[in-house]
Amino acid sequence: MSLEYTPYVPVKRYLLEISYDGTNYCGWQIQPHSPSVQEVIQNRMFKFYDRQPIHLIGASRTDTGVHAKRFAASFLAPERPAIPMERIFKALNRQLPEDIKIHSIREVPLDFHARYEAKGKAYTYVVNLGGLSPFNSRYSWKPIHEMDVEKIRAASHMLTGTHDFSSFVVERSMIDDAVRTIYRIETQVVGQFCCVTFIGNGFLYKMIRCLMGTLEAAGSGKLTPADVKEILEAKNRLKAPETAPPNGLFLMKVFYDQQELENYRPEGIPFL
Amino acid sequence: MSLEYTPYVPVKRYLLEISYDGTNYCGWQIQPHSPSVQEVIQNRMFKFYDRQPIHLIGASRTDTGVHAKRFAASFLAPERPAIPMERIFKALNRQLPEDIKIHSIREVPLDFHARYEAKGKAYTYVVNLGGLSPFNSRYSWKPIHEMDVEKIRAASHMLTGTHDFSSFVVERSMIDDAVRTIYRIETQVVGQFCCVTFIGNGFLYKMIRCLMGTLEAAGSGKLTPADVKEILEAKNRLKAPETAPPNGLFLMKVFYDQQELENYRPEGIPFL
Repeated sequence: MSLEYTPYVPVKRYLLEISYDGTNYCGWQIQPHSPSVQEVIQNRMFKFYDRQPIHLIGASRTDTGVHAKRFAASFLAPERPAIPMERIFKALNRQLPEDIKIHSIREVPLDFHARYEAKGKAYTYVVNLGGLSPFNSRYSWKPIHEMDVEKIRAASHMLTGTHDFSSFVVERSMIDDAVRTIYRIETQVVGQFCCVTFIGNGFLYKMIRCLMGTLEAAGSGKLTPADVKEILEAKNRLKAPETAPPNGLFLMKVFYDQQELENYRPEGIPFL
Repeated sequence: MSLEYTPYVPVKRYLLEISYDGTNYCGWQIQPHSPSVQEVIQNRMFKFYDRQPIHLIGASRTDTGVHAKRFAASFLAPERPAIPMERIFKALNRQLPEDIKIHSIREVPLDFHARYEAKGKAYTYVVNLGGLSPFNSRYSWKPIHEMDVEKIRAASHMLTGTHDFSSFVVERSMIDDAVRTIYRIETQVVGQFCCVTFIGNGFLYKMIRCLMGTLEAAGSGKLTPADVKEILEAKNRLKAPETAPPNGLFLMKVFYDQQELENYRPEGIPFL
């Protein structure tokens, strides 16, 4: 009988913040036949964890073409090989394609859940008030009509607070209720871009793009703030204008701390 | 014998200003086996000019991976079909891929030459002082060493004026002389980016990237302004540091008017 020394290497859970250009992906979540951000990262991890499958749990989904400045996802690192956190960070950033980058990594409790423990999220939607260029067309929406930023601001005040957002939801499942709280909507003009930042406790499928479509109609003068309030209160998707395109939308931050969520300041142009 | 009315449609020459993201191209000029910006635009024109070949004359070449905010190129429009200028502009912008856009079009004299008549050019090189993101890594260079912007500025003063720039030229042909005039080098810090703008009467092959490599060595403290002056005066490529990568470089403007060249103001971050 031999006594071998086997060092005890505990299983660990890590939380990643991930930046990605969503142009070439079907979004975060794995889909058959379409490249997803989750799949690309998991495939890299599979290789450096000796072909053990790694499962990333994302804080939410993002749609095709939507970008992220700091998406959040956690994973359980296997016992062997025990790779130090700094090496996971560097190896991923070296091996991932240019349109996906790990922004940060930290250890979290083993029972941490990236989705259920999120206190809220911040999204920024970029409206292009100037000319489209090969450098900004993937990251902004240029509406056909002229935009009045003050009108966007006035209408956005109708949408903050706790409401049933049924008028701003696409393909809603029957079991979800549509009550969410938007703490703030802040509209900044930076150069030729109008950046509208939504900070809330959670957002439904395509909700920000639906809200932005309505704010665009307000910005072009087609809707008054009172009309926007009426659309919200109708709780009927058919009352709201068209959904804004995905390429102007950035998930800016997922919050696991209430204080951080409340103190969040909009960051200007997200695609820098 | 029949008398047909044939309206007289004069041949015209047009000058285009073109924006492009150079990431996926071997540069402006047509090369065998590599996609070029010139080829993409000429192919589109070939189609709407009823399969008549159109030849674009560019103001210069750009290297693989170099971008342009406003590259200039002219072409002779055939007699038939006579397409109004506004329609050429719209048709091109509708049919070109997202990474190439026509910024402007105007009619110029038939004997206008886009290269020989250029009075000068402005280029901006983007140095990334902050973190790399999926949104800025194609458009900026992050040097390994910390940069001191004041040191870049001090060294840049050594390079303005009329000089023989042989120390900053790659693959120089024997017949070219290397005397050029740099009117100004302006260094702006905008957010996390240091934008170095070079305004001159002309630049040699890879000259800006060579100059930027030297300014980077100055910015990191490896070279003093006196060292930079010495490198310039040596007229020997082997004396200068490595060439900076192409992805931080933007051709900002080609000038056909001396006054416009002299009045040019740097435009900040070029990839917006």
